[in-house]
Amino acid sequence: MSDFESFKAIQKKQKAYQLVLGIASWDSNTEAPKACFPYRSEMLSIVSGEYFSMQTGDEYKKVVNALYENMDDLNDIQQKEIRKAKKDLDKIDKIPKKDFVEYSKLVNMSQREWEEAKENSDFNHFKPYLEKIIKFKKKIAKYRNPDEHPYNVLLDDFEEDMTIEKYDEFFKTVKEELVPFVKKILAVKDDEMPSFITAKYPKDKQKEFVEYLMGVFGFDYDKGLLKESVHPFTWNTHSKDVRFTVRYLENYVFSSIFAAIHELGHALYEQQIDDMFDMTNLKSGASMGIHESQSRFYENMIGRSRMFWEAHYPKLQSMFSPQLKNVSLDDFYKGINRVDETFIRVEADELTYPLHILIRYEIERMIFEDEVEVDDLPALWNKKMKQYLNLEVEDDAQGILQDVHWSAGMMGYFPTYALGSAYSAQIYYAMREQLDFDKLVKDNDIEAINKWLQQNIHCFGKSMTPKEILKRVTGEPFNPKHYIRYLKEKYSELYLNGKE
Amino acid sequence: MSDFESFKAIQKKQKAYQLVLGIASWDSNTEAPKACFPYRSEMLSIVSGEYFSMQTGDEYKKVVNALYENMDDLNDIQQKEIRKAKKDLDKIDKIPKKDFVEYSKLVNMSQREWEEAKENSDFNHFKPYLEKIIKFKKKIAKYRNPDEHPYNVLLDDFEEDMTIEKYDEFFKTVKEELVPFVKKILAVKDDEMPSFITAKYPKDKQKEFVEYLMGVFGFDYDKGLLKESVHPFTWNTHSKDVRFTVRYLENYVFSSIFAAIHELGHALYEQQIDDMFDMTNLKSGASMGIHESQSRFYENMIGRSRMFWEAHYPKLQSMFSPQLKNVSLDDFYKGINRVDETFIRVEADELTYPLHILIRYEIERMIFEDEVEVDDLPALWNKKMKQYLNLEVEDDAQGILQDVHWSAGMMGYFPTYALGSAYSAQIYYAMREQLDFDKLVKDNDIEAINKWLQQNIHCFGKSMTPKEILKRVTGEPFNPKHYIRYLKEKYSELYLNGKE
Repeated sequence: MSDFESFKAIQKKQKAYQLVLGIASWDSNTEAPKACFPYRSEMLSIVSGEYFSMQTGDEYKKVVNALYENMDDLNDIQQKEIRKAKKDLDKIDKIPKKDFVEYSKLVNMSQREWEEAKENSDFNHFKPYLEKIIKFKKKIAKYRNPDEHPYNVLLDDFEEDMTIEKYDEFFKTVKEELVPFVKKILAVKDDEMPSFITAKYPKDKQKEFVEYLMGVFGFDYDKGLLKESVHPFTWNTHSKDVRFTVRYLENYVFSSIFAAIHELGHALYEQQIDDMFDMTNLKSGASMGIHESQSRFYENMIGRSRMFWEAHYPKLQSMFSPQLKNVSLDDFYKGINRVDETFIRVEADELTYPLHILIRYEIERMIFEDEVEVDDLPALWNKKMKQYLNLEVEDDAQGILQDVHWSAGMMGYFPTYALGSAYSAQIYYAMREQLDFDKLVKDNDIEAINKWLQQNIHCFGKSMTPKEILKRVTGEPFNPKHYIRYLKEKYSELYLNGKE
Repeated sequence: MSDFESFKAIQKKQKAYQLVLGIASWDSNTEAPKACFPYRSEMLSIVSGEYFSMQTGDEYKKVVNALYENMDDLNDIQQKEIRKAKKDLDKIDKIPKKDFVEYSKLVNMSQREWEEAKENSDFNHFKPYLEKIIKFKKKIAKYRNPDEHPYNVLLDDFEEDMTIEKYDEFFKTVKEELVPFVKKILAVKDDEMPSFITAKYPKDKQKEFVEYLMGVFGFDYDKGLLKESVHPFTWNTHSKDVRFTVRYLENYVFSSIFAAIHELGHALYEQQIDDMFDMTNLKSGASMGIHESQSRFYENMIGRSRMFWEAHYPKLQSMFSPQLKNVSLDDFYKGINRVDETFIRVEADELTYPLHILIRYEIERMIFEDEVEVDDLPALWNKKMKQYLNLEVEDDAQGILQDVHWSAGMMGYFPTYALGSAYSAQIYYAMREQLDFDKLVKDNDIEAINKWLQQNIHCFGKSMTPKEILKRVTGEPFNPKHYIRYLKEKYSELYLNGKE
């Protein structure tokens, strides 16, 4: 066997373990009965342990390193596989095993402690864990790349090629352009929530409508499924098994609908990846940011557009006649694009959302620049909420404790959420140059949009970097101005009679 | 580590693999999208291969054999674990690997070929595979125990301690007592099916009623779940994760209901096994026969009793008022216990069911006594159907090709179905001596019956053999006369005014 064949053989075994662990995780997150978990956790840790050993086995390390040193005989795709394998290997292998094990235990425990802290709105309870996690993240970043800024190491984990410098530029634009614009909108918005937004919509009819949407968007049931769970998420093991979940809220139908379209966007991406990548480490979406750009694209550019509801509002209205019979399309469109100050990121509207991310980015940046003590984080958070969203945070549960990410050690993740939204706008304008987007959406020809995204983005899986994809699709590197333009166009039309 | 500790450590790892493979299989059989299977099968075969190697690894063999040779230091339960492990090991280990692999391939292929043969009602298509399977089964039985009758080796696999001699005695009773009794009943039965049996019952209300029954029987949702699938089945990985499936037939509600109660019986058994066995090879029910006795007990002794419907018919009638409003409890009770000639075993009523098994037992016995050629099997089958059920088989799909078992190499399995029913009657009369069964059922106190079964049968898992369980519960070894008594009492009351 050549080194590359050995690599593929070991990788195939790794993928087999990914598959069974993946299926177990899907089951745990959707339907497993609650009493099964003590036994299950103990058993799964054994199989995960085997999987971990496989990823760091001597034979595997040897072939990956040998191939990485000498890639000339490999074709383009093979080179990308090896580069990815080498990067993944270094992520684990450069960290002393002792630290790795200790860190894994820490994040497991921290998530439980964070939950308790959030429940009691008690930051002090979580503080010692957060301190340890931050210390560990800095240490691990040093192991992995002693010459690089630790935050850059983490940022690159979630979005290849992104750095403090690039994010600084992005968030500077967000801050300068959006913060004052949001203030303007909030000043004129109607304080009262339209009653159709919070009316009761029976769950089984919500479900029926979401199933109708699956048809509209062309979700392929031969290659996936839709199920209910407490937190909506998308899951896949390869391009022919892509699943996502929805949560139906009787008193907030639009949360159900837009969360469904959001996850559907993630799922369509995965279904449209070329199946030549199934057996490689290049399957799955290009990056967190590109993935989020697709979910946001389907959710916002399509799902929250006027054109989309010109096509589908009559259906919705007829299904929910008591709730919507007196609501015009115009009022409906305004209602689903309502801007509001909110404490909680996951409930934020499209316009204020990036400000929530701005806050987290600025704080993470300060943490890794050693510019803030953990003790001072809640006050810092609250100050920024006041500054950007004019909100007085009342307790840490609705403030700094609201997100799970830090307790899971996922520092550097948040910025990709805003980045994904910004990517989606850049892609949106590129698409409009080639497709009659409004007409396609209005004519319910989403198929044509899917196809364009498949050919330009989806089919490549991880074989192109985010940078390469953007360049290919839009002709330029990442440029936040499209995002600002998109938001200002949309929301000044909605709130300011088209003036900024 | 002592040998026993090594044994437990290796076994724990095996159980971890059982768990992930088990979850994958549950997923495959309930919701996995159809396009996922080529990739999934390839990946699962890798993990199954690892699991197989673990079961036959040198270290494992060494400790099991050492412990088996010297069990004095072990306690009673530990001795049972080792005896079971040794038996399971021999099942694989005495067969040359080459034969094992070839046989596994054969049964995989045969099941597909059987499906096709059944679809086209073409026995000749399946014949060469069946011939090979029979040859293999004989060869494997010889490897495993050269001094034993090959059919005895197979029978013991599905029901410990059962032999041709014992089954001969059982089926002789069935033949002598039931065949003429069934003829008498069939002669007087009303040819016309009552219309409420085949009326249309909406699926969602069927589902609601089955969920109501879960409450009646005390299924513990913290330790399991109920789901839909094409073929009803029960699945579990340990006592705290026991699931079963139901299929709702709009035009045959009683199939849905009684299949649900049947699977529920299997599931309750698994949920009530003491969790001290979860980490051992003694978890799960004692044997196929004892398991079937429990599903049959819940389905027939409780579910098809008049007392049960005295408690629950008003509920059913109110839920399905158009279909049942003019059906008296008496007619309903007769309808759900209707006896009829049927070609298909899985659709047979309680009374004719054992005759279907009799046919299969007699044929399997002849096969392993070399008294029949594969060529002559269809004619033999049809002759027996005429003899016992007075039916003219029209094609092999409704004849010899109807069951999957032989194509999967499961020879020796069928007899346990009849045995389970017979066990259930023996257990039933023993229970009646201690509990006021009729009153408990009528008063909807199934809990008391569950408890009795838990204490007398369920809690022991595989730590007692079927023989030991029967002796303990009924005070005597297996005795088919209880089964004959039960069927004659019930059906002469229903059809012959209480006379035989």
